[in-house]
Parts: sequence; C-alpha cells; structure tokens
Amino acid sequence: MAGEQDRAEGRGTKAWGGRFAKATAPTVEAFTESISFDWRLYRQDLAASIAHARMLGRQGIITAEEAGTIIAGLREIAREIERGEFVFDPGHEDIHLNIEARLAEKIGDTAGKLHTARSRNDQVATDVRLWCRAAIDDLRTRSLDLQAALIGQAAAYPAAIMPGYTHLQRAQPVLFAHHLLAYVAMLERDYDRLGDCRRRTNVLPLGAGALAGVGFPVDPQAVADELAFAASAENSMDAVSDRDFVVELVSVCSLTMVHLSRLAEDVIVWAAGEFGFVELDDAYATGSSIMPQKKNPDVAELTRGKTGRVFGHLQALLTLLKGLPLTYNRDLQEDKEALFDAVDTTQAALVAMTGLVETMVPQPERMAVTATASFSTATELADYLAQQGLPFRQAHEVVGKLVAQCLAAGKSLAQLTAAELAAAAPQLGPDALERVTATAAVAAKDVPGGTAPRRVARALQAAQARLAAHREEASQLEVGHSGS
Amino acid sequence: MAGEQDRAEGRGTKAWGGRFAKATAPTVEAFTESISFDWRLYRQDLAASIAHARMLGRQGIITAEEAGTIIAGLREIAREIERGEFVFDPGHEDIHLNIEARLAEKIGDTAGKLHTARSRNDQVATDVRLWCRAAIDDLRTRSLDLQAALIGQAAAYPAAIMPGYTHLQRAQPVLFAHHLLAYVAMLERDYDRLGDCRRRTNVLPLGAGALAGVGFPVDPQAVADELAFAASAENSMDAVSDRDFVVELVSVCSLTMVHLSRLAEDVIVWAAGEFGFVELDDAYATGSSIMPQKKNPDVAELTRGKTGRVFGHLQALLTLLKGLPLTYNRDLQEDKEALFDAVDTTQAALVAMTGLVETMVPQPERMAVTATASFSTATELADYLAQQGLPFRQAHEVVGKLVAQCLAAGKSLAQLTAAELAAAAPQLGPDALERVTATAAVAAKDVPGGTAPRRVARALQAAQARLAAHREEASQLEVGHSGS
Amino acid sequence: MAGEQDRAEGRGTKAWGGRFAKATAPTVEAFTESISFDWRLYRQDLAASIAHARMLGRQGIITAEEAGTIIAGLREIAREIERGEFVFDPGHEDIHLNIEARLAEKIGDTAGKLHTARSRNDQVATDVRLWCRAAIDDLRTRSLDLQAALIGQAAAYPAAIMPGYTHLQRAQPVLFAHHLLAYVAMLERDYDRLGDCRRRTNVLPLGAGALAGVGFPVDPQAVADELAFAASAENSMDAVSDRDFVVELVSVCSLTMVHLSRLAEDVIVWAAGEFGFVELDDAYATGSSIMPQKKNPDVAELTRGKTGRVFGHLQALLTLLKGLPLTYNRDLQEDKEALFDAVDTTQAALVAMTGLVETMVPQPERMAVTATASFSTATELADYLAQQGLPFRQAHEVVGKLVAQCLAAGKSLAQLTAAELAAAAPQLGPDALERVTATAAVAAKDVPGGTAPRRVARALQAAQARLAAHREEASQLEVGHSGS
Amino acid sequence: MAGEQDRAEGRGTKAWGGRFAKATAPTVEAFTESISFDWRLYRQDLAASIAHARMLGRQGIITAEEAGTIIAGLREIAREIERGEFVFDPGHEDIHLNIEARLAEKIGDTAGKLHTARSRNDQVATDVRLWCRAAIDDLRTRSLDLQAALIGQAAAYPAAIMPGYTHLQRAQPVLFAHHLLAYVAMLERDYDRLGDCRRRTNVLPLGAGALAGVGFPVDPQAVADELAFAASAENSMDAVSDRDFVVELVSVCSLTMVHLSRLAEDVIVWAAGEFGFVELDDAYATGSSIMPQKKNPDVAELTRGKTGRVFGHLQALLTLLKGLPLTYNRDLQEDKEALFDAVDTTQAALVAMTGLVETMVPQPERMAVTATASFSTATELADYLAQQGLPFRQAHEVVGKLVAQCLAAGKSLAQLTAAELAAAAPQLGPDALERVTATAAVAAKDVPGGTAPRRVARALQAAQARLAAHREEASQLEVGHSGS
Repeated sequence: MAGEQDRAEGRGTKAWGGRFAKATAPTVEAFTESISFDWRLYRQDLAASIAHARMLGRQGIITAEEAGTIIAGLREIAREIERGEFVFDPGHEDIHLNIEARLAEKIGDTAGKLHTARSRNDQVATDVRLWCRAAIDDLRTRSLDLQAALIGQAAAYPAAIMPGYTHLQRAQPVLFAHHLLAYVAMLERDYDRLGDCRRRTNVLPLGAGALAGVGFPVDPQAVADELAFAASAENSMDAVSDRDFVVELVSVCSLTMVHLSRLAEDVIVWAAGEFGFVELDDAYATGSSIMPQKKNPDVAELTRGKTGRVFGHLQALLTLLKGLPLTYNRDLQEDKEALFDAVDTTQAALVAMTGLVETMVPQPERMAVTATASFSTATELADYLAQQGLPFRQAHEVVGKLVAQCLAAGKSLAQLTAAELAAAAPQLGPDALERVTATAAVAAKDVPGGTAPRRVARALQAAQARLAAHREEASQLEVGHSGS
Repeated sequence: MAGEQDRAEGRGTKAWGGRFAKATAPTVEAFTESISFDWRLYRQDLAASIAHARMLGRQGIITAEEAGTIIAGLREIAREIERGEFVFDPGHEDIHLNIEARLAEKIGDTAGKLHTARSRNDQVATDVRLWCRAAIDDLRTRSLDLQAALIGQAAAYPAAIMPGYTHLQRAQPVLFAHHLLAYVAMLERDYDRLGDCRRRTNVLPLGAGALAGVGFPVDPQAVADELAFAASAENSMDAVSDRDFVVELVSVCSLTMVHLSRLAEDVIVWAAGEFGFVELDDAYATGSSIMPQKKNPDVAELTRGKTGRVFGHLQALLTLLKGLPLTYNRDLQEDKEALFDAVDTTQAALVAMTGLVETMVPQPERMAVTATASFSTATELADYLAQQGLPFRQAHEVVGKLVAQCLAAGKSLAQLTAAELAAAAPQLGPDALERVTATAAVAAKDVPGGTAPRRVARALQAAQARLAAHREEASQLEVGHSGS
Repeated sequence: MAGEQDRAEGRGTKAWGGRFAKATAPTVEAFTESISFDWRLYRQDLAASIAHARMLGRQGIITAEEAGTIIAGLREIAREIERGEFVFDPGHEDIHLNIEARLAEKIGDTAGKLHTARSRNDQVATDVRLWCRAAIDDLRTRSLDLQAALIGQAAAYPAAIMPGYTHLQRAQPVLFAHHLLAYVAMLERDYDRLGDCRRRTNVLPLGAGALAGVGFPVDPQAVADELAFAASAENSMDAVSDRDFVVELVSVCSLTMVHLSRLAEDVIVWAAGEFGFVELDDAYATGSSIMPQKKNPDVAELTRGKTGRVFGHLQALLTLLKGLPLTYNRDLQEDKEALFDAVDTTQAALVAMTGLVETMVPQPERMAVTATASFSTATELADYLAQQGLPFRQAHEVVGKLVAQCLAAGKSLAQLTAAELAAAAPQLGPDALERVTATAAVAAKDVPGGTAPRRVARALQAAQARLAAHREEASQLEVGHSGS
Repeated sequence: MAGEQDRAEGRGTKAWGGRFAKATAPTVEAFTESISFDWRLYRQDLAASIAHARMLGRQGIITAEEAGTIIAGLREIAREIERGEFVFDPGHEDIHLNIEARLAEKIGDTAGKLHTARSRNDQVATDVRLWCRAAIDDLRTRSLDLQAALIGQAAAYPAAIMPGYTHLQRAQPVLFAHHLLAYVAMLERDYDRLGDCRRRTNVLPLGAGALAGVGFPVDPQAVADELAFAASAENSMDAVSDRDFVVELVSVCSLTMVHLSRLAEDVIVWAAGEFGFVELDDAYATGSSIMPQKKNPDVAELTRGKTGRVFGHLQALLTLLKGLPLTYNRDLQEDKEALFDAVDTTQAALVAMTGLVETMVPQPERMAVTATASFSTATELADYLAQQGLPFRQAHEVVGKLVAQCLAAGKSLAQLTAAELAAAAPQLGPDALERVTATAAVAAKDVPGGTAPRRVARALQAAQARLAAHREEASQLEVGHSGS
C-alpha cells in the first residue's frame, strides 16, 4: 500500500508508530494537509464509497451485512455534512480520512473493511473525476444561459445596425444581432469541448489500488455502472497518475475566459462615453457619488481581469505534471485548488456576464449614426464595380480616389453626383449610390454566415433551436445520474 | 475591405498612395512583416485560392476562362515553390501577397480578380485551419508510432517484473510491460483529443470576407467540399476572429509533452547507474571521451526540457487573445510562430522518443533483483489477512509489526518461519509466504487494468488491435483528401 | 473621484441613490466583493490611515482635534481586529469601507473627513505596497533560515564526498558540503533580488488621489516618513495603475521556488532506496502501515508540486496587466489573491524545506562508495597527462582507451599496473594512480569556487559571515519601522 | 569531463568511438543540435576563449607561445565570421565546437590545448552571461530612446488637457504631458531593474569546469577582469547549473512588455475615430485601398500581441528549470531560443513604439472638448465644499444632487446660477464655478506627482535631467568594456 495511502497513516493513531520514533512536525502537518480544500469532494467521496462497499458485499469480499452497515453509516455522514453538523478535523488530514474516522465512530471496526481493495490513490482519482463531471455539467448549463442572454438581445434588436470593427477602426456596417451571435458561436464550441472533456473524464479509476491493481476479485464495471461512469480504467498505473482530465477541463475554461474577456472588452468599449452603444443596467454597474452620469463596467472589467487567473491555473497544472515519474507522487495533491478555483471563476464569470448582457440596453440610434460615418460603406462601391467586370484591385483604386475626392470636398459618398461617379469610372451608374447606405451594405452580405438580415434571422432561429436541444440533453443527463 | 486586407496595401505600388504622404518606415516594415514565417502556409494558400477561383468561375462571379487562367497560374507557382525556384520577397509582406504578385507577373490583370469576394482575414484563417488539420494528422501518425514502439517493447518483455514506484520509493512489483502500457493509455487519449480538435478545426472561414460576409453570390459549401472541410462558418465575425482551434491544438500538444516528459523522466531515472533498468542504444545517447561507461540520456533530457517551450506557446496564445475586441486585430498575426513551433517541437519529441524507446535495452535481471527488495510485497500479506476476514486496517497493523521484526532481525519476509507467522496472527498460515514473491504479488493483481500477466497480455492485444484500427483510419483520411 | 472610489458608493446608504433606480444585483455583489481576501490588509490600511489623518491635521486640512479623534478611533479598531472582535461585513465590500464604516459608528460624522484628499485608488496601492514590504522582509528572514540549515549541514559533514552528477549520471566526486553550498549561492541571489524589489516597492502612492493628484495641500513626504517609505510617487497616474512591484515580487518568489524545487528533486533522488544518500527524519516524512522501511519524501514532493502554483500566479498577474489602458481599472482588484497565495506558498515551502534539511541525516558511507564507482575519477588522469604537456583532447583519448581496457578486464583504474599505464602513454608515471581516488580528485579542484576541501571550508566561513551580516541588517530594519 | 562537454564528443571524429558501436541516429543529431541558434554567441565565445587562453599562458598551464598561437587563430576566426566567410557546420553541433574545429584547421594540435581547464558547461554559461550583459545594455539604451520620445511629446504639448480615465470612463482632466510621463516612470523602473539584473549577470562561471572546479591553477580573477566581469562564481556546481540571470532578464522584459502593451492600448483607443486624440503618422500606420480615412494602428496592435510571446518565454524558462537535479542537464540547452526571442521581441517593440510615439500628432482641440464633458470636473466642487469644512462624504452628496439637477435640466455645471448653488449648500459661493473648468481642475492638483502644470513642468525637467544622466552612464559603460 503506497502513494496517498501512505500518508494516511502518518497521523492520528498511526499503524506504523513502531518504526517512527517521532511524530510529524506541526509545520509539516500544516504544509501537507488538504482537508481545508478537499472537503469539497465529500459528496463524491461518499457516493464512491457507497458504490465500493456495495460491490464488495456483492462480490463476497465483505459480507452483505457489513456492506449494509457501512452504507448506512456513510448515508448518515452525508446527512450530517449537508446539515452542517460535521466537524472537519485537520488532524485527519483529508476528506477521505475524515469520513473514515467518523464512520469508525459510528460503526466500529467494520469501518476498517471499507478500505479493502482500494487505496487513496484510486479513491481520490475517482472523487476528482466525479467532481469534474458535475462541474462540466454545471458549466455547460451556465454557458447555455449566456447563449440564451445573447440570443435574447439579438432577437430583441433584429434590425439594429452598428459599425463592425477591425483594428478598433470602423470597417463595415453589421447587424448588432450578428455581432452578438458571433459570441454564441464561440460559446457553442465551448459547449462542444466540454462534452468531449466529459467523455474522457467519465472513466472509473477504482480498482487500480495503489498503482498495480488490487488483490481482490472486485467488479469495477458494477461500480462504474452505479456511479454512471462509462467505463473503468484500462491501466492501473495510468489510472492513479493521470490528471489529463483536470488539465483539459481547465484548458476549456481558459478558452471560455478568452471569449468572456473579448465580450467584456467589447462591452467596456461600447459603454465608454465616446462610443455609447449600450447603457448598462443600474444593477450591473457601479456609480460614483460625484459623477452621477458615470456607470463603471466593473463586472466586465473583473471578468477580463479574472481571465489571467484561469490561465495561471492552467500553467500551474501543466508545470505540476511536467517530468513526474510514474506513478502517484504527492505533488498531485496540488491539482485541486487550481481546478476548484478555475471552475469557480469560470462559473461566476459566466453568471455575471449573463446578467450583464440580459440587462444592458442597446442604443440603436447611436449605433446607426456611427455605422455610416467614416466611409465604412465604400467597399460596396468597389464590389459594384467588380460586379461590372472590373478586376477587384482596380475597382479598389477607383473608389479610393472617389473617397479622397469626397474628403477634400468635405462630403459623403451619398452626396456624389451622377456626373462625378461617371467621371470616376464609366461603369459607375447613378444606381451605385443606392449601395452606400448602411442598410444596403448590410443587406448585400447575403451569404451563409453573412450579416444580411435574412441570414441573421435564420442564424438566430438555428441558434434558438440548438439551444433548446442542448437544454433537453442536459435535462436527460440529470435524470440519468441524479443518484450521484 | 479591412483587417489583414488593409495592411496588404501598405506597401509596394500602393493603391492608397494618394492619401499617404510618406512611405512606411523601414523599422515598421521589419516589425510587421510575416513572410519570414508564414511562407510555410504556401501549400494551403494555393489550395484555398484554387478552390476559391474555381467556385468564382462556377458561380459566374468571374468567367470560367478567367478561373481557368488563374488556376493554371497558381499551379505553376506551386511547382516553382516546390522546386525551390520561388523567391519570397519581404517587400510583399506575407505569403498571400507574394503569391498574388507572382500571379500578376504570370497572367496580368486577371490576377486581380482572384481576390474578388474574399479578404485576407478569411483567407488567412482558411490557410491556418488547413495547416492545422494537416499538422493534426501528422501528430496522430507520430503519436501512433510511439504507441507502436511502447507496445513493441512490452511485447518483447512480457514477463519482466520491475518495482512499481510511488513517491520514487519502491511500492509494489509490476510488469515492465504494464508500466509501458500506461504510456500507451496516455497517448491514446492524446489521439482522441487530436480527433476532437480536428473536428472543430475542419470548418471553412472563406466567405466571411473582412468581417461581415462578402457581397457576391459565393458558394462556400462548394469550396468546403473541394478542400474537404466538413462545413462552412456559421458567423462571419467569429470566422475572422476565432483562433480557438490554434489554442486547442497547442493545448493538446501540451498534454502530449506532459506525457513525453514523464516518460523522459522515467527513462532518465532508469538509465541512472543507481537504477540500471535500461541501457540506452548508442545511437540514442551521447558519450564522453573520458568516461566510456557514460551514456547520457540527452534525448530524454531535451524532450523534458522542450516541454516548457510548448507550455510557453500555449500561454503566449492565450495571452494574445485575452481582451481583444471583435473582429480582426493585427495582434492575431502573432498566432503563427507559436503554433508552428509548438507543433514542430511536439512532432520532433515524438519522433525522438519513439527511437529512444524502440532501441533501449531493458535489463530484466536488474529489475527483478530490485522488485522484491524493500519489502515491497508486504501488502500481499495484508491482503491475505483481509481475505481471512480481518478488517484491512488491522491487517495492516499486523504486517507492519512483522516487517519491523524482520528489519530488526535483518531478514526478509520470505525468511519468516511458520511459527513466527502464527505468532503474529493465528490467521497467518504457512501458505502465506507463497504470497510474498514478486511473481505472486504481480499475479494477484488479477483485475481489469491490473498488472497480472494475463490481464497485461489481454491489454497488450487490445492495444495492438486498436493501433491497427487507428492506422487504418489514418490511411482512409489520407486517401480522402490527398488533393489538398 | 473615480476608480475604486466609485464602487465604494455602489452599496449601503449610497450617496448616488438618486440616479440609480435599482440596487446592485446580488450576484454582482458576490462577484465584485473583495473583503473575503483583502481583510488581510487591515494592518496596513490602519497604519496608512493614521499617517494620513495626522498629516491632514498638521497641514490644517482638517483640525488637529479632528485628526486626534480619527486616530484614536482607528487605534481602537486595530485593537478590535487583533482581538478578533471585529466583524468583517461583506455588505461593506472591502477592507477600506469596513474600517471607515466602523469608524463612523465610533466617532460619527468626523469619520467622513478621513477620506479627504485621498481616493481608494491611492489608498489600496499604499496598503498593498506596505503589505509587500512586510512580506519581503519575512521572505528574506525565512530564506536566511534555509541558508542557515544548509550551512549547518555543510558544517556538520565537512569531509563527506559524494558523486557529483550531470545528466543524473555520476560525473566527478564532490564534497557534500559543496553541493549544499550551491543552494546557499542560489538563496543568496534571491535575498539580493528581494532587496532590489523592496527598494522599488518602498514608494508611497498616497497623494495621487483617484488619478490626477489631490486638490488639497497635502504633504506626502511626511506620510512617507511616518510609514518608512523612501519616497513618494513621481507621477499620480502611474501611482494608481502601477502593479510592477507585485509582479516583481512574484517573479522573485518564482525563482525561489525554482531553487526549492531543484533542492526537493535532489532530496527525493537522494532518499530513493537506489541512491540512499540521506535518511529523512521521521518528523519530516510519512510512512506506511505495511512498509515500515518506507519513508515518503512528501514535503519535498509538495514543494516541487507547489512550484507550478507560484509560476501560475506570475502568469495570472502578467496577463491581468497586459493591455490595460491607464489608469485604474477594476481588473486590478485581481492582483491580491495571486500575490497573497504566491507569498504564502513560498514562505511555507521555505519553512518546510528548512526543517527537512535541518533534520535529514546524510549517509556519508553510502555516498563514498558511490563516489568512485563508474570511473568518475578518470578525468583526473586526463588532467595529469595535460599537465605533462599532452594536448587535452589527446589526453582524453589516451584515458578513454585505458578505461575501455579496464572495463574489458573487469577492473578499476586503481588496479592498473605501472606497466599498463606506461603502455598507454609514456607520460603516465606510476604516481598517476594517486590521482584516481575520490579524495585526490576532490582535492585537485583547488580553485576559487572549486570543491577542494580548503576552498569549501573557506566558502563555508564566508557564507556564515555573510549570513550573520544579513541577520544584522534585518534586525536593524525591524527596529527602523517597528511602528508599522 | 561531463555535461555539455559530453555531447561534444558524440559526433565527428569521436574520441570515444571505441566503446560506441553505432553512430548517433540522424534524427537525434537534428533533435539535439544547437548551432542553428547558438551561432549568435560567436562573439562571446571568441572573447571568452581569448581571455581563457591568455590566462592559461600567463599561469604557465600552456606556454606563452601556445597562447599566442591560439589567440591569433581565434582572432582570424572572428574576422572570418564578421566577414561572412565562416561556414557553420551542423556536423559540429554547437558554436563552441564549430570554432574549435576551425581553430584546429588553422593551428593544428595546439588547438586541443585551448580546452584545458574548462568544460563546455562553464564555457556556455560564460558565453550566455556575456550575451545577456550586452543585451541588457542594448535594452537600456532603447528603453531610454522611448523615454526620450515620450518626453519629447510631453515637452511639445505642455498645455494640452485631456480627459483622464478610470474604467475607460472619463474621470478627471489631466495634462496630456502628465499622461505621457506616467509611461516615463514605468520605463525608469525597467531601466533600474535592468541594472540590477546586470549586476547579478556580471559574474564569471569559467573555472567551474564540468561541475567541480578545474584541476589546474587557473586565475579566474584575471579572466573576469579581461572580460569586465565584476567577480567570479562562488560555487562551481551552482555556476554550471544557474540560469537565474536568464529568467530574471526575461522577467524584466515581461514587465517592459506590460508597459508597452498598456501604451499600445492607449494609442489604439486614442486613434479610434470615436476618441480621435492622436493622428498616427503615415509611416507608422497602414491604410486601405478603399477607406482612405482609415489608418490602422498595426504597430501598436503587434506590440500588444507580442506581449504574450515574451510572457510565454518566461513560463517556458521557469518550467524548464523546475525540478532539475544538480548540476548540468541537457535540458538547459533550451534556455537560448526563449532568451534570444524574448530580447529580440522586446528590443523591436521598444524601437517600433519609439517611432510611433515620436511621430504621432496629438489633437489638443479634440482632447480639450472631451475633457470637460461628462461632468468630469464635479470633484472640484466637492473639494471646494470640503475646504469650507464640510465632511467629504457630505460634500459628495451635495454635488451629486447638483449634477443630477443639471442632467435633468440639460445643462452643464458651468451654467448653474449663484442661486442654484446657494440652494444646494450655503457654503457654495459663486466663485465655486471658477473651479469647474478643466484648466482650474488641472491646476488644483498642485501636489507632488500631481497634474498641475507647474508640477508637470518640474517633473518634465527632472525626467530630462535623469535621462541625460543615464545616457552618460551608458556611454561610460561602453568605453569601459569596448573590448568585449
């Protein structure tokens, strides 16, 4: 018995007292304890222990009666914890030993049989996988909530036209709804990635023991079934050393934070007085006692700021794993805080941004005014010329000169006369000017994925339908393993 | 027209010379050029341009003849590059403009029609996706090669027993083959992740234009089909800003490097004189002119050292994307070098470690001697007692005392007498000693995923079959899109 | 008034209630609060407020009486917090407002005068700088403690010879004390870096106000003097936006963790049964109930594992700051948790490793046996030949052949006969064999920084003297600003 | 002889051919070579070898004549490389062996004596330190150039008032010059940090040999003096393993990139049409053939984008070093590319941003218009009231109501009547309105570090004087070690 198992015995009424002449140093106890953070695994630890005990009983490794006693005891402990009556004791180092110690108080020596055919190495790997699986399901739900908020705003403002930006310079007009749906597309990829991560996470390590497999006729498949795992681990040494699923989940969180930070940046810019494209809701902004006009986009700023935190956890986890020899090393205990905080942060940011998006009030008039400024429809004239057969590069040149001419004369493209157009290029008929309105420019992008209203309307419907389908999937999952 | 498109015109015979009074500063040219690294995209750029031109012709956006001329010109350029005759000109800033300029030399004004209905923003996104897809396929192949090398060694030494370690302390005996198969399990997850990443990468951005979609009746589906993309982008603004696929690929590479660094560490430790579990092949080690016995595991060390490099690229990419407003920003140009180097490094490390594993010579005798040392089979006695009904925690205690007794007497567990055993616990029959050999300890782990020889043999067969199936899949893919 | 100031008013009896129609959303309150972690700044916040109030009084900005009342109130609050009687209220968001609210309860309206001529932007920057300064002093002390432990072991085993490693392969014999002093050299650089970081941290931001400087005739120099700052900030906009000192401190912590992780790795390897160079003390190791011989180096493993955590915080902070426009942005609130945890982790790791080093028991015999194995003194023969005038590259070749000859004959260099030596090279006199003992090899490295005993003895003395001098410096500093 | 030394002999006419039955595998050669990047160390390698040879001669370790021959040969090689006549041969793996091989071609067997009393482990550490020292000096110069550009713009626009921002919301008016000087303050800290880093870098490792010190009576102090190192290494094992100086330099570069990315963000925002505070020079922007008004701030965007790259290299280096046992491990070869690219990137970004800042054209009128908008001088009224004795919190409240009143009435603070003021608070005399102009608001911040014109003028002078002093220092340094 080794690995995390080993340290269990380093404290309390230690089984190995004979050989060790001294107790563990107090600073070492403080340095090595994990109960201060791994108490969060209690639900998973109890579920896994119950499934393990039931299997031991069914396989005759312990008696059915012993199994029953253990399970009943564990259920009582679950109730104690949920009711806040359980005292987590740092003297018992981690969540596993806290629970086992309490079980011994309740049911006596039989408690010692629960740890038959398992080690803390496979136990903790099982608990963390269960926790991650639940976290994934929760993140998916919250991610869908933000999709819903974006879709809601898009549906509420189907016709609002705003400037589309490249390099933070106005480029071409787009529908505000189209801009919001770009974020829906990003979140949809996150949803998809979470699903893939879930599939790889959903594998049971129990049965791997300390590292080599256990010496009892266990039935991992039965435990997997009870805990709704899709399979059990194919290699015991890998099972106790693997933390890929933790890294992968935090990677997915990192990408979600990238998306949220970009949305946050857009909102901060839109809310700046110089832009003025949205007004934030009072409940999602903070004010100042002096400048009542001022609404600071703190929620967006904190979201952007928390991005680095999740990236940092990803780096921490990768560094942690770099160069570790097989199999379990105590370094692995460091996986939990980074994981917990990355998930908590991503969840909180999703929730906060959902509220922000739901409640912000777009300012379509302000958007519209800005959308046609800066000759941002000039591309339309070039396209017009290209459609008349002029090579695109030449078309660009013609329009470039026209714009320069407008700038010199202090007028907009719409104010050009038919004569001026024809002088620039014989192909430029007077109908060309119909192309330079923001409305026409947007309508012209009538291709799959483009910003033309009918395309965006269709995209919106598709997004709504997909969202509904995902909600349905999620509710099925919940029904499927409501037990754990 | 905007985004990357914009900068194209910043140089050479600039279409916008009229407005700009000064040429770009030379330091700015050097700071902003990308041809020094994006030339690597030439194959993808040509393939995408050919598909684009063909579609333009089919849709009547340009004439069939124009399309033919363009395609023929691009094919000639492809041959020039492959033959090393093409001169990449930093004056043409990037790969796209280098090719377009050469095309103009070849076919004149018609070259200017190729850029109809596209922008450099959707073009570069398309090129990078094609590059990533090919990189993924290559990484999968190389990852399978390493699986094959590990499986080969496992198959060659099916019976070798070595100590299994936790905390770099001997814990329980395991099969050497079992240890190697742990790495196969890791690589298999990488393979799976690469597949998921491929699915999300395999989406066509062309048609998104600068950011809003294009103003021509393009047929993205046709282009997607020709380039073997599974679909075209659902939102144009997302299509030109999205670099998720780059981050995801480098994340997957990071996990592969974690696995390789762990394998490297194991090999370094095994090759240390104090362990002596493997001898490295001369071709995969370096020597010293003085110490002829010395073989340094440089390949493993460099692999371990290169791990940080890939992690660093991942952080670079995440940091790059943090807080960028939509849509295209020039920052995105910085995605390529990190991507290229992360992929190159991972590929090279896979190849180097494959050779190292294939050629290393395990030392089963040395492993065997070490495997039973340090009482690493003591767990077996505890399991024996637990099987007699003693609670596991008590069983541990009994065996602990026995071991202490052996230590005091300077003997091994195998040297205990029947009387000594019985004195320790009445349940300890003389047959218990049969359990403390390394062979018996290994055989006892006869559970799914365990190290018992018959389990490992089965796992080996499964790994071989899976490998063969993956090879088959890969060859199908190659047939499928040999065109690109 | 702006920046952090703004948010203060977002809650409680809000000064700006008139304009805001709705209260802050509860999820927003939870997302934006900081009292759950910034309570740790209470000592710094109180000290800075006392110094600020005293200056306001002296400058006549408030009356001397008001200043006195405020200071007395703040001192009472300090006592309440120290005695654990203060209730931190999440409703008051952060540490600054918690204290101000309590002050108002105690002294009424006069409390509102404390915030004259300052903003939360310069206040929080001041608090964090004070906190960092204290953290630096503490880290320096703990770092010296580890130096002392290493020096202590070096002094206790001045003559122990061990193999020196490159590539984890035995290379040349070295003194164990020399190996330990390599870590002292690293820690000394950390000490030096902490000093530089302290110098840049020790600058007062108060007076910068929200961002532009304050509109009252304040005396920053007086406040700086009272708080033992070396200077006040040269630019108000920088003063409220700058977090360089946080990044720099976490950078220094990262390098300390690099050093500790290398020491940890060395200890883990030394403690492995295959090496056996040290035995860990019972109080600094954990055991197993079955394998009483087993002592897991958990403290070293956790130290190594925690390294990534500190690196991750560094990355988080850098990412946080990337691309933030001036001046204060709410993102900056995210600086604290990363900072606190990086410092806590580094401190704890220093303490834990100090105990581990102090208590570990070196095994000089085992080291000695291994030190001469593997021909690790062969270089000495080459040096001998080079001293006779043979070019070094040729000398290497001669010795290489000799070693090959020994390997073939199964003997060591020491067993070569005079005839065999002479046959290899005429310059090789019989006295050459005196060079191939570990003792002679070590003694031969008699250069500054070399491992010859008299050099190491001198280095040890120098390290002891330097340590004493640093201790003296540290105690002076403490006397200097015992007030804060 | 070990470490990097070992690998030298792994190729070409290998000294250890006898024992190795096979040549190094080609993929291994490609995987392990470093000449493709470490050729950049040639100047340092030559300088260090010359100093080493001279010392060997002076100490009588080789003859004076041999030393002379070697030095002459090395000088010829220097000329060959500088003239581009030297062919770097990947067959000779690294820069050290390339030079040594060429030396042998030139001077025969004597070349073999150059490597007496050194190893590649101390040699490469010496080269990299020399390279870093030169890089530091160059970075300091370029950093001062950017200071100069900022100071130049500040001096050219001493009276321009712009809005100061917090949360990207207008907060209080500030001088444009004050904003620019905030960046000067940041760069000054970078300059200071580079100096500290230089001090720690400037230590000579030569004499450490492979790891234990060398067995010849070398004189490291003489070598240090010739190469302008301040000291030689105190511990040989540390000397060959230490890469702190590399990490520290890249840390400093990371902070510089933070500063540049913030400046870049400010410029991008200022250049956005919605802000319009600066116009970029044609030579430092890119245009578009269609939208002639468009100037994309590519230089600023790329600078911001390159930030992550440097952070990534920092993480790569930290990860590289984590958990490496002493002493030299081949992993360390991976330090160079990250270092080189981090320094190159930072240098290039400093140069590019210097040009951008020098040539941008501020738009003071546009700034002025925006500076008083949004009631950003309201704080002044509150300060006015506080100066009349009203507690600050109450003053805020009074002004808050006044602003709300203005908003409702659609007027600015300046349009309030004396009666309205008095009604709000009796202390508000008609002179209060003189306070609400941007000019008055700026003038009121008349404290050290504040934005009042006379303070900024003084700060500007101080910055100019400091810059001149730094330039002087730099030129002294250059004179001091022009030899290397």
